[in-house]
Amino acid sequence: MGFEYFTPTKVIFGKGTEEKTGELVKEQGGHKVLIHYGGGSVVRSGLLDRICRSLEVSGISYVPLGGVVPNPRLSKVREGIRLCREENVDFLLAVGGGSVIDSTKAIGYGLANEGDVWDFYDRKRTAKGCMPIGAVLTIAAAGSEMSDSSVITNEDGWIKRGYSSNYCRCRFAVMNPELTCTLPDYQTQSGCVDIMMHTMERYFNLNDTMELTDGISETLIRTVMKNAGILKKNPLDYNARAEVMWASSLSHNGLTGCGTGGGDWASHQIEHELGGMFDVAHGAGLAAVWGSWARYVYPEHPERFARFARQIFDLEEDGDVNALALAGIEKMEEFYRSAGMPTSLRELGIDPTDEQIREMAEKCCFFGKRTVGVIKKLDAADVEKIYLMARG
Amino acid sequence: MGFEYFTPTKVIFGKGTEEKTGELVKEQGGHKVLIHYGGGSVVRSGLLDRICRSLEVSGISYVPLGGVVPNPRLSKVREGIRLCREENVDFLLAVGGGSVIDSTKAIGYGLANEGDVWDFYDRKRTAKGCMPIGAVLTIAAAGSEMSDSSVITNEDGWIKRGYSSNYCRCRFAVMNPELTCTLPDYQTQSGCVDIMMHTMERYFNLNDTMELTDGISETLIRTVMKNAGILKKNPLDYNARAEVMWASSLSHNGLTGCGTGGGDWASHQIEHELGGMFDVAHGAGLAAVWGSWARYVYPEHPERFARFARQIFDLEEDGDVNALALAGIEKMEEFYRSAGMPTSLRELGIDPTDEQIREMAEKCCFFGKRTVGVIKKLDAADVEKIYLMARG
Repeated sequence: MGFEYFTPTKVIFGKGTEEKTGELVKEQGGHKVLIHYGGGSVVRSGLLDRICRSLEVSGISYVPLGGVVPNPRLSKVREGIRLCREENVDFLLAVGGGSVIDSTKAIGYGLANEGDVWDFYDRKRTAKGCMPIGAVLTIAAAGSEMSDSSVITNEDGWIKRGYSSNYCRCRFAVMNPELTCTLPDYQTQSGCVDIMMHTMERYFNLNDTMELTDGISETLIRTVMKNAGILKKNPLDYNARAEVMWASSLSHNGLTGCGTGGGDWASHQIEHELGGMFDVAHGAGLAAVWGSWARYVYPEHPERFARFARQIFDLEEDGDVNALALAGIEKMEEFYRSAGMPTSLRELGIDPTDEQIREMAEKCCFFGKRTVGVIKKLDAADVEKIYLMARG
Repeated sequence: MGFEYFTPTKVIFGKGTEEKTGELVKEQGGHKVLIHYGGGSVVRSGLLDRICRSLEVSGISYVPLGGVVPNPRLSKVREGIRLCREENVDFLLAVGGGSVIDSTKAIGYGLANEGDVWDFYDRKRTAKGCMPIGAVLTIAAAGSEMSDSSVITNEDGWIKRGYSSNYCRCRFAVMNPELTCTLPDYQTQSGCVDIMMHTMERYFNLNDTMELTDGISETLIRTVMKNAGILKKNPLDYNARAEVMWASSLSHNGLTGCGTGGGDWASHQIEHELGGMFDVAHGAGLAAVWGSWARYVYPEHPERFARFARQIFDLEEDGDVNALALAGIEKMEEFYRSAGMPTSLRELGIDPTDEQIREMAEKCCFFGKRTVGVIKKLDAADVEKIYLMARG
């Protein structure tokens, strides 16, 4: 039961906190900032203007770079690296959700290391540093604002890969829950699934875990489920937005993994291939495959799934631990459906061919170079079966 | 519902982690280290030797300074500042519990700022920095290994004062639960009370709190109570030691205060005066006064105390929120007694005169310059009544 825990990100949480951006960049010693963002909503809402004003007040100059798409792409990362070099940028500011922050992290690696940035994601080299990053969060989902990870899609082959290191952890994260109030319901619910899954991935493992971590994880999952329901009815509920936003950070900053020995992560790997090939919303993709993954692997550790059923859904055992485990999986899928989330690929709106499924399974396992998951170590044949179960 | 959260301390948790101390100091750029510690147990157990070896392997030189006592004293802090200046120390290593870490933090303030270090604790000036600090934790209680606070006693008048700033947060904390296995039961249980109280102080407030924070706090309190009971029977239980040690850090690093607006802290202020005058164990002192504080203030916010009763003790309401609140207070005192902790000053082993009680109440409220607590703002007359209620 050993672990490392390192979450250096300074969190500034609450209404109007984006006004402090300039001050926070200044505190970190930044002079010239890349403002990295996605689509036009950041511009239309006036958020970009407010942030620019805050930087100006602190005497910080900036250069904007928009256009980050969901499942952020390597070409945009390369564009960012070139621009920052030309403009002598010394601090990176992500204004957006996980895709924008991940793209920013990749730019940071590219600037602080020689050679091609894709090498890190392709497991060819290890990064030795990252340009300092701050984030103004506009979507509660990925948890990238406090996590050590980033995921980038290489358009050359549509390969989606993650890379993790403490270097890329944000120096600060500005979190104003109001900024998420205008998100469409599908994106809100998809974010909630992503948040829950970051904890569930760590929760499902084969080790003796810590009670304190299990309790925190269960509280987090229940809180997100409850507030996802509130937001379904009233998307403007500030308190519910706040609960979900703070959960997004705590779910993926390492806290819910203390003493769990790493977690499973197979569902994420399986979904990553869907995201690489079909550009689906990450959380929705996770909801679509999780039940199939869970039914495929639960016999390896039914007690853990039974605890999940008891603690998350107040289900009670009737002498049959397997039945309880399955009932918990069924309940989670019911929740996903109530949230308008898919529980199959068909409901996700995609219909991959057998050939595409085989290709995704092979890519997921690096063409035989790795297995995914720890509850059950899955090879390409296992992953293929899970995709087929998830077809719906 | 706004807050700041900043916990930059890198935690290295598990068996044998003290062997990494040299590596960790090196990572922080330290060359010459003050090893600050308390009594002989750190020497007798061989821990000091293991740490010195680890430093030597990393090419780091060191100078030792022992002799820190519970309720650490200003004279030792001043001795440490002088020694570090003479020896050109550039990194401070605390090996011990809260008293040692607090003494180290005060030394760090003294080294990084001009003038008398007591000024900060006496609210005369604000610190502008602190020499970098690492900790090897040997007592799970104060949470100083991740907190922003330190408490020092000035022997000139036996005034005990705290000072908080982000500057003093430890760069790293080495936490090997095995190092706490030899603690006497009274100290273990007193530590558990201190840990619970760091969360309870934040939990009891007048604000709309966050569900996620409330859930984490309740999980933490229940986990500590359960594992305190296990350690009462088997002090060598590693898993229970680990739960309690990790709880000590999470309880006081800010996590359980996110969105609570600060917390009450009157029990701590009331106990500080006992500690300043009588040198009692901090956690035992808290147990001795908490019930009296709670009975005095609960009518201001009975719903919060009722929630506490429901969530911590599974008590159910019978139409009378005040009765439920009181039942929860009673249950907590029962727990303290079962842990061998006092619930009155008499059980704590002290018998202050009326004059001493009046003096402590005046000192607690800075001779009329402040009130303590938020559930009910207490002046010296209130605090005096609470001491009298706690007399037993």
